[in-house]
Amino acid sequence: MAPHAALAEAGADYELVRVELDENGAASAEYLALNPWGRVPTLVDGDLVLTESAAIVLHVADRFPDARLVPLVGSPERSEVYRWLVYLTNTVQPSYLRWRYPERYTADPAGEPGIVAREADTLRRHFDRLDEQLAARSWLAGDERSVADLFLFMLTRWARSQEPAAWERSNLRAHFLRTLERPGVRRMIEEQGLELPDWALARA
Amino acid sequence: MAPHAALAEAGADYELVRVELDENGAASAEYLALNPWGRVPTLVDGDLVLTESAAIVLHVADRFPDARLVPLVGSPERSEVYRWLVYLTNTVQPSYLRWRYPERYTADPAGEPGIVAREADTLRRHFDRLDEQLAARSWLAGDERSVADLFLFMLTRWARSQEPAAWERSNLRAHFLRTLERPGVRRMIEEQGLELPDWALARA
Repeated sequence: MAPHAALAEAGADYELVRVELDENGAASAEYLALNPWGRVPTLVDGDLVLTESAAIVLHVADRFPDARLVPLVGSPERSEVYRWLVYLTNTVQPSYLRWRYPERYTADPAGEPGIVAREADTLRRHFDRLDEQLAARSWLAGDERSVADLFLFMLTRWARSQEPAAWERSNLRAHFLRTLERPGVRRMIEEQGLELPDWALARA
Repeated sequence: MAPHAALAEAGADYELVRVELDENGAASAEYLALNPWGRVPTLVDGDLVLTESAAIVLHVADRFPDARLVPLVGSPERSEVYRWLVYLTNTVQPSYLRWRYPERYTADPAGEPGIVAREADTLRRHFDRLDEQLAARSWLAGDERSVADLFLFMLTRWARSQEPAAWERSNLRAHFLRTLERPGVRRMIEEQGLELPDWALARA
């Protein structure tokens, strides 16, 4: 979602290719030739084959400076974008993954409920903090949407089945709706055929 | 280690302040005023208060372009640095933390051994991949050391009590020694009073 939205926001000429995983979660030989670790997504840009969503969004931002997806190099706002993007990808996203796929994080199936219980708490705390952060500002860093906001938008939607859903927090919901107003974000939603709740559809 | 080494490599004028945590791992009120989430480290640069090591090293790299700690904006090599840095901070580092501090990742103490067993495997696989990656190249991305290499250096040392230790892999060990030749890295080691194994001391 985040790299796709960044490409659309940047006005890049891109082609979306879905990666089909088999029953065991393994990618095709064709995909593994591009990305031997099999993780999704991969961006192919000329000779560059890039993985890691947080890296891809920074790459797109650097490639299309006119889209202002990150503040200027050397500005404090840019470093704030790095900070939020890193926090989202190294803390919030891994917590979500442990909560959603506990079987990947223990050798003992009996240990899975303990992981889910712990991460449900941890994840709630992270979304509470993000909600607080957004109480006094429209975007995570700087005065306009950045790739950090696209990343948060993705995680907010991912966590829709948490209790409470991430977007049940008022500032996070306002941020989600604000991000949804971006043409590139709407295009991504449409091209991926993603479902949105009624309160978001009413605004889309 | 990585932000400190980046500052030293950049020739920045910095002051190292140790953060003492209490018995429960809590930081002082003074530190929490700077960084309400209590995580270490925090960089104070004028009015900017920055957290997240991976963000701090990019900030330092952008602030001191002459140190060439990241390739130029818009180059494929820079995006490769983003990619490795993101992978190290969102995949390898969290795996290490789960292996080292399983109690943070489950509500059920009986589930801790299963987490440790799983992460011991996962972490080994990540270091194997990093070792493979370094078979044909001196640095993770581009032709000279970048902040991604400083980050890997840190994780390689962190994982010294894994079995096998991360640096028992030949390419990773060569990378560790190569990074240790950097004056800023040596300065960081000395200022933090970090111990090194004999084979590294012999080269330091």
